[in-house]
Amino acid sequence: MQNNADSIQRLITRLARLPGIGRKTAGRLAFHLLKVPKEEAIELADAVRDLKEKVCFCSICFNITEEDPCYICRDPKRRRDTICIVEEAMDLAAVEKCESYHGLYHVLGGRISPLDGIGPDDLKIRELLPRVDKTVSEIIVATNPNVEGEATALYISKLLKPLGVRITRIARGLPVGSDLEYADGMTLSRALEGRQEI
Amino acid sequence: MQNNADSIQRLITRLARLPGIGRKTAGRLAFHLLKVPKEEAIELADAVRDLKEKVCFCSICFNITEEDPCYICRDPKRRRDTICIVEEAMDLAAVEKCESYHGLYHVLGGRISPLDGIGPDDLKIRELLPRVDKTVSEIIVATNPNVEGEATALYISKLLKPLGVRITRIARGLPVGSDLEYADGMTLSRALEGRQEI
Repeated sequence: MQNNADSIQRLITRLARLPGIGRKTAGRLAFHLLKVPKEEAIELADAVRDLKEKVCFCSICFNITEEDPCYICRDPKRRRDTICIVEEAMDLAAVEKCESYHGLYHVLGGRISPLDGIGPDDLKIRELLPRVDKTVSEIIVATNPNVEGEATALYISKLLKPLGVRITRIARGLPVGSDLEYADGMTLSRALEGRQEI
Repeated sequence: MQNNADSIQRLITRLARLPGIGRKTAGRLAFHLLKVPKEEAIELADAVRDLKEKVCFCSICFNITEEDPCYICRDPKRRRDTICIVEEAMDLAAVEKCESYHGLYHVLGGRISPLDGIGPDDLKIRELLPRVDKTVSEIIVATNPNVEGEATALYISKLLKPLGVRITRIARGLPVGSDLEYADGMTLSRALEGRQEI
């Protein structure tokens, strides 16, 4: 394929830059795109382009949106006394999907991770402070339950404590449908710590 | 994400149509593209578009190319007395990569597969016949060593036999670096059948 069809080579190189896609998979995808009807490939190309051209961040919660403010911040039916803090817009989508939360959100845009050179100032943490006024009664910290997510949660809770608002953290324990036998020690001890009256 | 950022949803749907990419992976890729610099995403979009706009098939060997005939058919240094038959342009690329073949190719564009409704007429088999003239001394059938590839090889060899040209099939045996212990029975019996004098 060397001197041949440069556009295939170029596409393979671009696809191989995506996370979890190596050169072999990229090759397979490129050859697949070669076979599909032209419209289908063009639709994909346009979807990528549109994404970069239309999507922006909500100026209130930093969720991704095509209209500012986003549909959640705009929605008069959402409870305005609770703010759920998540790392990424993808996490917001996951919480929305479970349909048991009806408050507002705040998307940090990442987590504190000194190894990757990401400190509190690289996240939308400072932007959270003016949102926490008297109308807000609870902040739910829903960063990921891993080392960096926990560190971020700790940082935020320390920062917000002086404001006198109630700060909660999502429960860590055994996932529904799982098996005690296969649970790791950390999860099991968190599940025990977080036990509740029946 | 429901009523929100339609362009993300649209991109996820398009990406999830690609082979081996489910909705979860598509979501991850879309959010990745949201984060990368705009130029990088646009480059990807353009690469997909270019692929469909620039790439065509070589009128001689049906390899994919941007110029007709393709760089192999054009190359005066290639041996013109041997034609290697492969299923797809990707297979041609694989043969080229091993750098031990210097003849011409013929890309079938698939393999005979009655289950998928693909018969000999759906492939570039008829187009092979006028190429097999007196200048050609050997046809190497390099379709894949699986049921459909073997059936295709058999069909082609029967079709070409009356032309009096030498028809060979690539060797099936143990892959280099592998272990007899782990080889499947079919491969091992092919390796024994195809044994050669040392």
